[in-house]
Amino acid sequence: MNSSEFRRRGKEMTDFVADYLDGIEGRQVYPDVQPGYLRSLVPSTAPEEPDTFEDIINDVERIIMPGVTHWHSPYFFAYFPSANSYPAMLAGMLCGAIGCIGFSWAASPACTELETVMMDWLGKMLKLPEAFLAGEAGEGGGVIQGSASEATLMALLAARTKVTRRLQAASPGLTQGAIMDKLVAYSSDQVVATLGTTSCCSFDSLLEVGPICNKEDMWLHIDAAYAGSSFICPEFRHLLNGVEFADSFNFNPHKWMLVNFDCSAMWVKKRTDLIGAFKLDPVYLKHSHQDSGLITDYRHWQLPLGRRFRSLKMWFVFRMYGVKGLQAYIRKHVQLAHEFEHLLHQDPRFEICAEVTLGLVCFRLKGSNKLNEALLERINGTQKIHLVPCHLRDKFVLRFAICSRTVESAHVRLAWEHISQLASDLLGAEKE
Amino acid sequence: MNSSEFRRRGKEMTDFVADYLDGIEGRQVYPDVQPGYLRSLVPSTAPEEPDTFEDIINDVERIIMPGVTHWHSPYFFAYFPSANSYPAMLAGMLCGAIGCIGFSWAASPACTELETVMMDWLGKMLKLPEAFLAGEAGEGGGVIQGSASEATLMALLAARTKVTRRLQAASPGLTQGAIMDKLVAYSSDQVVATLGTTSCCSFDSLLEVGPICNKEDMWLHIDAAYAGSSFICPEFRHLLNGVEFADSFNFNPHKWMLVNFDCSAMWVKKRTDLIGAFKLDPVYLKHSHQDSGLITDYRHWQLPLGRRFRSLKMWFVFRMYGVKGLQAYIRKHVQLAHEFEHLLHQDPRFEICAEVTLGLVCFRLKGSNKLNEALLERINGTQKIHLVPCHLRDKFVLRFAICSRTVESAHVRLAWEHISQLASDLLGAEKE
Repeated sequence: MNSSEFRRRGKEMTDFVADYLDGIEGRQVYPDVQPGYLRSLVPSTAPEEPDTFEDIINDVERIIMPGVTHWHSPYFFAYFPSANSYPAMLAGMLCGAIGCIGFSWAASPACTELETVMMDWLGKMLKLPEAFLAGEAGEGGGVIQGSASEATLMALLAARTKVTRRLQAASPGLTQGAIMDKLVAYSSDQVVATLGTTSCCSFDSLLEVGPICNKEDMWLHIDAAYAGSSFICPEFRHLLNGVEFADSFNFNPHKWMLVNFDCSAMWVKKRTDLIGAFKLDPVYLKHSHQDSGLITDYRHWQLPLGRRFRSLKMWFVFRMYGVKGLQAYIRKHVQLAHEFEHLLHQDPRFEICAEVTLGLVCFRLKGSNKLNEALLERINGTQKIHLVPCHLRDKFVLRFAICSRTVESAHVRLAWEHISQLASDLLGAEKE
Repeated sequence: MNSSEFRRRGKEMTDFVADYLDGIEGRQVYPDVQPGYLRSLVPSTAPEEPDTFEDIINDVERIIMPGVTHWHSPYFFAYFPSANSYPAMLAGMLCGAIGCIGFSWAASPACTELETVMMDWLGKMLKLPEAFLAGEAGEGGGVIQGSASEATLMALLAARTKVTRRLQAASPGLTQGAIMDKLVAYSSDQVVATLGTTSCCSFDSLLEVGPICNKEDMWLHIDAAYAGSSFICPEFRHLLNGVEFADSFNFNPHKWMLVNFDCSAMWVKKRTDLIGAFKLDPVYLKHSHQDSGLITDYRHWQLPLGRRFRSLKMWFVFRMYGVKGLQAYIRKHVQLAHEFEHLLHQDPRFEICAEVTLGLVCFRLKGSNKLNEALLERINGTQKIHLVPCHLRDKFVLRFAICSRTVESAHVRLAWEHISQLASDLLGAEKE
């Protein structure tokens, strides 16, 4: 495909994308397909000769769409939101075209520098303590990771390297294995210090945990994968109080801040802690500025060597929404969760199982786990809306997460009426 | 931004992308900027109110482009190629719009199933042994990782888990730490068994290493990050002989197979080895098919939980180029490398430092490392072309890698004339 065909096809794809998202409400949110459905629809080997673009785009509708769970349908209330916005998609196109691999400053200075500055912008939006910002000569700073898991692993490895070096400096005879047998990572039953757990969006008390970690010289990593985005609103910022005790902090703008996956924002107070654990300096990556202290080589901050120009997505989203637009988006989701909570409150058959702080409502029918499993099966079986469950202290609980960028009060009310009707059917059937 | 504005801006961005790539030859391949250049060009905080798209697209040219190293310029001969093609970009747009997170089969069945089938297609293009393919009931199969580093880490962790379990089963008293003190990972001076090293594109002899690993019950992971793409051509497939001894194999279509970053293809012979090391099953990710043995939940195959619909890029690229188109692309690059090699051969001032097998030529001026460092400094200083060096047995060597999708014989000859002229200038200056 040459550039003139791309000019044509790119415009067709733009319309295809807009049509898909404009019409997503009309698609069944959860697919009907059975395991293995796709293999029978495609050839068993790649074609020798090129297919046409028309063939492929027709196959998207014929082969792909019937097997898609539509995460951006306003009837999708499962898991947590996965960000999706037009500005981020436009930035993604630009990122693909520039196609640089930003493992060092020299490999594309703009890629590294925009990331550092965007992570400062975002840190300021969250009112992170100054120590986490890079500024012009800070010891801390931010980096975009692929996922919160990678950020947690980076924090663990950095913490392990730091403590191993400290212990080996004190007792040079100690082997790494002997030290590792004694290392302990403390976590709650939802892992590391968490602000906004996946199950029920609960919050660890950083003001209690933090001072203990600092006193005992323990690395404190805070994961606010979902909830972090809300901290840009002053009314939710208190949930982050205590972050000043942390060594590293992470959340995912690719969940709830309209920056398409992947974009997991991680900050550290001392960049040397990360770099010390991972420094990699083959001669083919050396460049004249690297020992100047002026630049950042992000390959030392992450597991992979390669990295895309992901900060473009942040730049486009932050600028095209503005902080106020992003705040409004968060507030709308929280308000919709409270609306669903309110509807539940009015129905004595249901109970709410965790405090509704942000965009997640955990609820269940009063009664057995079996009853609630049956309710969820009916809900997902009818495929009008999609939810997933969780376990809270041995109770089987339904999670209603406000996810879609386009979800409105009307969708939430329809979802509620649907759930309520299915509950009536189920309870009626139980009585018979 | 609503969908009607996106329809307009997406088309403008399509043209911006096509204009950028059409005109890339006219841009200076390596930027002039100094460390910290970007921070002074942007505000210190995100805007409260939205900026317009025009503001942003103007700033791309004003702020971003001056700091970009143009990896897709036909004068870029540094590192290794980073894939970039129009079909992959179109697929990227679709991937962004669907925006699903494919951590389980149920989270979007098409996302998982297309990936399994595309990895089979690609495995067949490489004539991988049947054991690596998923088919309908195979024990092996493929997965898209973010990078070769992640694939190597996955292989290491799977190997460690496997051997630790074996040893603990034999001697239940052994602690993990005691075992880990004794574990050995063998690698060459370029790490793990490698086909096509970064420095000079050399090849380990799998037919020698493989049988030893199998006899000693050692995990053999093969990394062919760059070279792997060439194995779709029958004349290069022999370089992969011995892969039948491996437990896991990986290469990066995002380097040399026109699939934009990230797309690192990894296969294993026994999927249970990977899954055993990483299984993660919270209730909110459970679904009715997961214990049926019919489906794949890719979150067990990788470090992150989240994953994009990256197989769309493979599908678009394989179909729009066809196997023959991809083979022609590889052959063109190899031919251009030999053309540069031929030019070097005719100039007695230069020596070639490693066999030219694929698209990389390692060369130097006969003489000291200092002389060659000075030559590289002149080459990169004039910014007409961009190269990076490597060390081969204490020698400072220049790497000339065929990278761009649009590089032609004329660019290679211009690059050679430029290098040759700078060498003359340098040798002349040395004499004075």
